[in-house]
Amino acid sequence: MARTGRRPGGGSGTQDAILDAARAAFSESGYDGATIRGIAGQAGVDPALVHHYFGTKEQLFVATTELPFDPAVVIPALIEPGLDGLGERIVRMLLSVWDTAGPYNPFIALLRSAVTHEKAAAMFREYATQAIFGRIVQAIDADRPELRTAMVASQMAGLVMTRYLIKLPAMVEAAPDELVAGIGATVQRYLTEPLGLPND
Amino acid sequence: MARTGRRPGGGSGTQDAILDAARAAFSESGYDGATIRGIAGQAGVDPALVHHYFGTKEQLFVATTELPFDPAVVIPALIEPGLDGLGERIVRMLLSVWDTAGPYNPFIALLRSAVTHEKAAAMFREYATQAIFGRIVQAIDADRPELRTAMVASQMAGLVMTRYLIKLPAMVEAAPDELVAGIGATVQRYLTEPLGLPND
Repeated sequence: MARTGRRPGGGSGTQDAILDAARAAFSESGYDGATIRGIAGQAGVDPALVHHYFGTKEQLFVATTELPFDPAVVIPALIEPGLDGLGERIVRMLLSVWDTAGPYNPFIALLRSAVTHEKAAAMFREYATQAIFGRIVQAIDADRPELRTAMVASQMAGLVMTRYLIKLPAMVEAAPDELVAGIGATVQRYLTEPLGLPND
Repeated sequence: MARTGRRPGGGSGTQDAILDAARAAFSESGYDGATIRGIAGQAGVDPALVHHYFGTKEQLFVATTELPFDPAVVIPALIEPGLDGLGERIVRMLLSVWDTAGPYNPFIALLRSAVTHEKAAAMFREYATQAIFGRIVQAIDADRPELRTAMVASQMAGLVMTRYLIKLPAMVEAAPDELVAGIGATVQRYLTEPLGLPND
């Protein structure tokens, strides 16, 4: 059943219902598995209305990747106190966002799609490079800032994957403070310490 | 067109053709996206024959996860020289397997499925715990061996994800020796060094 009421300060209830249904579909089925028809059915609207408001499935996907925080605010705030302790702050921020997110976490949808679909992977790379990695690269005061930032991304991606997607028991059972200390030290090393690369 | 010839020392050509088609389908479409009908079509056989030889899609998936090396041989061989340098040896082995694998790498199919499908995630956990993690846990001579092994898994999963699936440019362009040194040190710390956990 289509909803037509408007919320103050935002899009129509119908658009919100479509976005909610799309987030659920991408999260559950990934980019390939989700269909406009299924999303429309879940939102109680005609598929034509989904196309009217959001265009293609790809454009609808981009519209759903709205994050629970604004990296343009959060990343500078993490960096602002200085490089000291930045590794632990990054891990703590990531855990606080993911541990409190519901089952329709847009991060999970984004990551699942990026792993299974080349176009979504490209979107993830572009988004993360602009919104997150670029700001960290600029803050690094050491050699190979791009490689260092990518190594940070690799440890963060693996943390998300093993704790929230594959759910390895030891990762799920670990206390946040344990992961902040144990994995934060890795991130700190990637950010500020010698990497010990060949020819260094 | 069904193939009926037999190869020396192995299953029939038909079974091999089905497994090849299934690996390609799971790799391209993930666990949910692949269908018995599509796999049968690709292998040139009737879907009923796929069910006859391999049972359900789930059983077929398990049959395709045959790895390009035997962890029962490789993991003990990595551990055998001792804990010294084990972090670098693990990273080097992973890179050598993935860098040389073709586009239908069964690892990629396994990982994609584990990320998008709860049943595949459970299969991945069970498989990896038995074949890989359990052997590393036993080799660790330090506190919290399960958490340490899970942390190793998190960094390895993130390395695979950022280099082979999401393809972050700095990770794709990094020389294997750079990743062996830079990320191997992280793995070594997780295996043998103090983690700096709270209450340590």
